[in-house]
Amino acid sequence: MSEITRTSPDSLQETLQQVMRLIERHKLIEGMVHKQDMPRHELVEQLVHKQHVAELEKKLASLHPADIAHILEALPLNDRGMVWQLVSSKDEGEVLLEVSDAVRESLLADMAPHEILAAASELDADELADLVPDLPQAVQQELFTSLDAEELAQVETALTYRDDEVGALMDFDMVTIRDDVTLEVVLRYLRRFSALPNHTDKLFVIDERRRVKGVLPLEQLLVNDPELTVAAVMATDVVLFHGHDDAGEAAQAFSRYDLVSAPVLDSNGLLIGRLTVDMMVDVIQEESEAEVLSLAGLKDEDLFSSVWASAKNRWPWLALNIATAFLASRVIGAFEATIAHLVALATLMPIVSGIGGNTGTQTITLIIRGIALGQINAGNAPRLLLKESGIALLNGLVWGGVLGLIAWLLYRQIDLGLVMMGAMVLNLQVAALVGIGVPLIMQRLGRDPAYGSSVLLTAMTDSMGFFIFLGLATLFLT
Amino acid sequence: MSEITRTSPDSLQETLQQVMRLIERHKLIEGMVHKQDMPRHELVEQLVHKQHVAELEKKLASLHPADIAHILEALPLNDRGMVWQLVSSKDEGEVLLEVSDAVRESLLADMAPHEILAAASELDADELADLVPDLPQAVQQELFTSLDAEELAQVETALTYRDDEVGALMDFDMVTIRDDVTLEVVLRYLRRFSALPNHTDKLFVIDERRRVKGVLPLEQLLVNDPELTVAAVMATDVVLFHGHDDAGEAAQAFSRYDLVSAPVLDSNGLLIGRLTVDMMVDVIQEESEAEVLSLAGLKDEDLFSSVWASAKNRWPWLALNIATAFLASRVIGAFEATIAHLVALATLMPIVSGIGGNTGTQTITLIIRGIALGQINAGNAPRLLLKESGIALLNGLVWGGVLGLIAWLLYRQIDLGLVMMGAMVLNLQVAALVGIGVPLIMQRLGRDPAYGSSVLLTAMTDSMGFFIFLGLATLFLT
Repeated sequence: MSEITRTSPDSLQETLQQVMRLIERHKLIEGMVHKQDMPRHELVEQLVHKQHVAELEKKLASLHPADIAHILEALPLNDRGMVWQLVSSKDEGEVLLEVSDAVRESLLADMAPHEILAAASELDADELADLVPDLPQAVQQELFTSLDAEELAQVETALTYRDDEVGALMDFDMVTIRDDVTLEVVLRYLRRFSALPNHTDKLFVIDERRRVKGVLPLEQLLVNDPELTVAAVMATDVVLFHGHDDAGEAAQAFSRYDLVSAPVLDSNGLLIGRLTVDMMVDVIQEESEAEVLSLAGLKDEDLFSSVWASAKNRWPWLALNIATAFLASRVIGAFEATIAHLVALATLMPIVSGIGGNTGTQTITLIIRGIALGQINAGNAPRLLLKESGIALLNGLVWGGVLGLIAWLLYRQIDLGLVMMGAMVLNLQVAALVGIGVPLIMQRLGRDPAYGSSVLLTAMTDSMGFFIFLGLATLFLT
Repeated sequence: MSEITRTSPDSLQETLQQVMRLIERHKLIEGMVHKQDMPRHELVEQLVHKQHVAELEKKLASLHPADIAHILEALPLNDRGMVWQLVSSKDEGEVLLEVSDAVRESLLADMAPHEILAAASELDADELADLVPDLPQAVQQELFTSLDAEELAQVETALTYRDDEVGALMDFDMVTIRDDVTLEVVLRYLRRFSALPNHTDKLFVIDERRRVKGVLPLEQLLVNDPELTVAAVMATDVVLFHGHDDAGEAAQAFSRYDLVSAPVLDSNGLLIGRLTVDMMVDVIQEESEAEVLSLAGLKDEDLFSSVWASAKNRWPWLALNIATAFLASRVIGAFEATIAHLVALATLMPIVSGIGGNTGTQTITLIIRGIALGQINAGNAPRLLLKESGIALLNGLVWGGVLGLIAWLLYRQIDLGLVMMGAMVLNLQVAALVGIGVPLIMQRLGRDPAYGSSVLLTAMTDSMGFFIFLGLATLFLT
């Protein structure tokens, strides 16, 4: 009997560091070979070099494709290319599926067409459909001609769905049975398989037209008398999905109903595939990452992409930001006379705008999360506005009061303190209103409520913060 | 045969709106009963009222506890209390487990001790352990006395683990077998169960001391000849967890290795429980939510908690923010003479600080994500710094150049334009350095790299932005 593998939570970190050490040693040797060009030493160095490469190759072969993917994502571009060369070709397809889109691009760029085809040959139709859009046109053509008719039809079906639809994520591999046979027959039928599709926790019971009549959980198959018929023990309250259902919502349903697998139907209501929990976990992780990134105005970015590629990823947001910052600056510009009259205003105004921006960010974060979870709608939005407005009033009076007091003490002008407090109260109201309004309007317009929301928020709290504070100052202090 | 349930992705939203309409109608009637106190009408109104309550109760009884939890979370406090009264007591325990901690508190506050005990009686030991810490002391005592010895021992075991450890999330319910029996014997053994534990995709093979020798996937049980022994077909490369392993890392492992269930060992290496994918999906969702909230300086917050409770949740961050905003303001204060000399500086300075803050937020978001995914360590951090610094230089030259040009055109001072550009280049370097350094230092100190990172970031980019811009202006423009 072989050893039981103990995957400790730290082991992946350790493996990553091990691989990085091997790469470093490898590069060190390469540098030495290069520098000391002494014929006598060369042979020895080359041997040591080969030994390190072999060690690295062996290490990689022992890893799960998901772990190789993780390591590749954590490596700078050059090292990544070197390690990728050493990955066994039977793992390459799986690794390509596991890495993020940005990293996948960098790996495919390093591969010759015949290498890509070899990697693809290890994949199922649904996995191929995932990969195909990222391949060069010529390779796509060649790949299609290498498939048999059934696989080709499956890939084509999967490709008719958008990336964020259930149909693009479903698996075509599944076990279907009829409801008029006994469990004994089902058990004998299963023994003819050498393996069941991944994550088979239930068999799908269909009629001759492929309409789903129910599901037979393996549990029911195992605990019931084999003499019973499928119809007698199958479950008929089934959570079903349609190919065009939103993948994110399907993932939420998997999480809510604790599903492992579920049938997917086409537009005629006929069974075409199967969703499994592993894909849904990926969807949940990707969506939450996308949300975090989108709040910072980013799209998925390879940690080690080039400066130029990264800069391009960040520019749309930055350009918008510069435009709004410039706008805010012009608001101040309109009050230059007031500032020239009382320079203290220039000192205090960033506090008003900054705190407005930060409290607004808290509001907008909660609202975006509420929208994502489907907990906010037209029915309860007014009540949320009331609550946030109440918090803003409380914060404005308490913290605005504290800041007003400090302004008064610093500059010995009670009017200035009152203007400070008044501006805080008003700007926090702006922050609450914008923090709730912007994501709700974005959603109503059918857009991602997170992406760009927070730029619009800071644009408003900055401009309005300056306008309110300097406006009040112009009215009452000059 | 009953109907197949089709759970459309929109159905939960619809159900929520349906429930909200029922509540509105119910409140309308109540209002009428109250206002028109005419004895003749009263009876009719009460009947209509009762009818609505009955309809709502029926609707709730038809829902999955997870959906009831979702609806409760989306309801304002009063409505939530009313609906909670109508939830069937057999669902109450499950619902309490499904809602967020903040909402659970609001529900428990509405329950009498005997109601809590009734709800708890429907739960397993591992679920009880989840609930117990939130219960009043007296109810805890009474609950413990109501358990049998085995359950009590299990609850006590689960309570010895921290919330974020695998041991706190494991299930005690599992099927174990010996390796010297045939599959036929296992099949017969399983038929003695009326149901298998949830998410049983494999049976655990143990020796007489409860050491894990391997696992028998149901798949292997089903496809192999029943005459074979368990030892012959069981898998021996098993992903195992220990009770004290970090739950988040276990969840990552579930996602990487596509697991449905896995054994949990105690500190002696003996089998004590089982982790299942549904709990791990919850962990992944909670962690990503916590990350989003923590970036905004929030802890988990009930959407409809009182103004006072919400304000308290947000104050620690706000207080820190006010302190750093005040600090930045004092930096400006030090340059009041320079600003009095050239008021345009007051107009332009928020652009330098604002854009520094925003580009730094992009960097910090990527770094925090990389740390969370375990892709950043001491080995590759210097290279990331180099990359971010390169992007910052590029952005500083390009966008700083654009802004410098605009400043020159606006104020007809080429020096002012050059100071603007120089300040942008330098402050974006500060942003890159802080954006990488702060989360890495936080992590080194064993703290959550997300919480508070972005306050520290904006504190630095604001203060340094003002200091650099006004400092350069003092040197070159006065």
